[in-house]
Amino acid sequence: MGYKVGIVGATGAVGQELIGLLERRQFPLSELKLFASSRSAGKQIEALGQTITVEEATKTCFNGLDFVIFSASGTLAKELCPAAAAAGAVAIDNSSAFRMDPNVPLVVPEINPEAAKANNGIIANPNCTTAITLMAVHPLHQRFGLKRMFTSTYQAVSGSGVAAMAELETQMGELSRGEPTTVEAYPYQIALNALPHVDSFLENGYTKEEMKMVNESRKIMGLPDLISSCTCVRIPVMRSHSVSVNAEFEDAVSIEAARAAIEAAPGIDLVDDPANGKYPMPLDFAGRENCGVGRIRKDLGYDNGLAFWVAGDQLWKGAALNAVQIAECLCK
Amino acid sequence: MGYKVGIVGATGAVGQELIGLLERRQFPLSELKLFASSRSAGKQIEALGQTITVEEATKTCFNGLDFVIFSASGTLAKELCPAAAAAGAVAIDNSSAFRMDPNVPLVVPEINPEAAKANNGIIANPNCTTAITLMAVHPLHQRFGLKRMFTSTYQAVSGSGVAAMAELETQMGELSRGEPTTVEAYPYQIALNALPHVDSFLENGYTKEEMKMVNESRKIMGLPDLISSCTCVRIPVMRSHSVSVNAEFEDAVSIEAARAAIEAAPGIDLVDDPANGKYPMPLDFAGRENCGVGRIRKDLGYDNGLAFWVAGDQLWKGAALNAVQIAECLCK
Repeated sequence: MGYKVGIVGATGAVGQELIGLLERRQFPLSELKLFASSRSAGKQIEALGQTITVEEATKTCFNGLDFVIFSASGTLAKELCPAAAAAGAVAIDNSSAFRMDPNVPLVVPEINPEAAKANNGIIANPNCTTAITLMAVHPLHQRFGLKRMFTSTYQAVSGSGVAAMAELETQMGELSRGEPTTVEAYPYQIALNALPHVDSFLENGYTKEEMKMVNESRKIMGLPDLISSCTCVRIPVMRSHSVSVNAEFEDAVSIEAARAAIEAAPGIDLVDDPANGKYPMPLDFAGRENCGVGRIRKDLGYDNGLAFWVAGDQLWKGAALNAVQIAECLCK
Repeated sequence: MGYKVGIVGATGAVGQELIGLLERRQFPLSELKLFASSRSAGKQIEALGQTITVEEATKTCFNGLDFVIFSASGTLAKELCPAAAAAGAVAIDNSSAFRMDPNVPLVVPEINPEAAKANNGIIANPNCTTAITLMAVHPLHQRFGLKRMFTSTYQAVSGSGVAAMAELETQMGELSRGEPTTVEAYPYQIALNALPHVDSFLENGYTKEEMKMVNESRKIMGLPDLISSCTCVRIPVMRSHSVSVNAEFEDAVSIEAARAAIEAAPGIDLVDDPANGKYPMPLDFAGRENCGVGRIRKDLGYDNGLAFWVAGDQLWKGAALNAVQIAECLCK
């Protein structure tokens, strides 16, 4: 009894979290297979009380699996997700390869779970920043009708993988000992710095990451004409993203109704009592399944606007947790 | 020949920068007097090749001075700035005590130098984040006519003084050695974290710091009806603030004209070649007199909008440098 699950990219930062979350959430597993590139094949990983040997991910390795969760490059996803689907599995892909494909649902289970059910064998997991932001934005959209949003992000290094996390730690040690810093994961030192540069730059001056927020928000919330603009910034934080949001709505807003909408929504905690020092911080949302929203106030920039601040674990709601939740949607 | 200058708060983070900048910019000094609270009085400070003994700041200590630059609390400024003015000096105050007083000019010399000349003995130095942001916003306003702006800040710990700077350094060392962190300067750990909390909270849900951006921007640029909203966030960066800006203008914008306006403006560097990895970073703008702007692009959130990213030294353009420049305005 239970489902046979494969993880592609099992040795990476998100892959490790996927294994942990399947255990933590007691996902109804009957078998777990771990895949990676040929370089990591043969490696042994402890999971679910067993030692599992990592196999090379190939087009022919997916037979008999119910779900294959991909946390690998877009190139590999493009090659292997269709093979997993053809083998009868549902492929849940963390890369950006299929997100804007009209035949592939892009799913945040708290927002559009019905889209997951209508899949053709591949389901896309959203960009981390987008998923975390929408956990707060969508309940407010349902209540007031979203028209426009400006977002500025404060992104953790975990989004760049384990090497970036190790490099931030290394740089902090080097700086505290007065040594020169080792700079490899980013073009510049990330400790004590902020880089307005996440993913590569496009012709319109935005980064790919910024355009993911614009385009994926439209698709997930079913708002093809949503007006939005985003600035993505990497800061020296380990594994939780934060986002400053200025949102304009169709209807008149009230703080009370906004708070009630958040409190009634799944997966998001209201942490909003600034007079008593309560607001979401990335440090508090690391290793937490729910995202958090606070600093909710009438936005002085709009007639019907709300300004607020969201935080959430990049490796969890921004990646691994959302992917596991998609699989859970389909188990019910 | 030269001017007699006093510094109140000479032993603080900004006070130390004031002394250094008077030297660096070869301010036409004939005498420098250093003042502080009774606690620091008697301390000896090396400045301009002399050893200067810090005196207690009192109502009667300003006789004969031409300029007194205050970098102290608002309470002390309220008490002593009028005394300095009554003694015939021009008081240049870094606190928020007089900024919104209609009888006191609020000055960024590159923007409204004429206001400095019309002083009644007291001139206010703006909030650090506001001064740095407007260095980029004002030239664009002059070219396109500013209507509205949303700002999200990425603020350095220097804004909280020397103890906060030392604490960030201490916490980095503690974290890199796996030790618990010492938390005193802020309500929470600042290393590897982001606090959406700068200055105290007001009834409308904004912080004082956020409302300074809203109100001081209006006064400095002479735009009493400017619509704006700000979210202020402290991040683990040492001494330069950065700001993400989404600005809406009256006139149609073009990137070429925006860049030309910035290049023609004093005190701001265009650092905007993202394809070649060039954008302003707080680490690069520490110890730099000019602020920097980059990531200039058409804002997808407006018809006539620009999104951009500004960085500048909080202790310099955000405080000490701007104050020295105000004095220089009056020397010419």
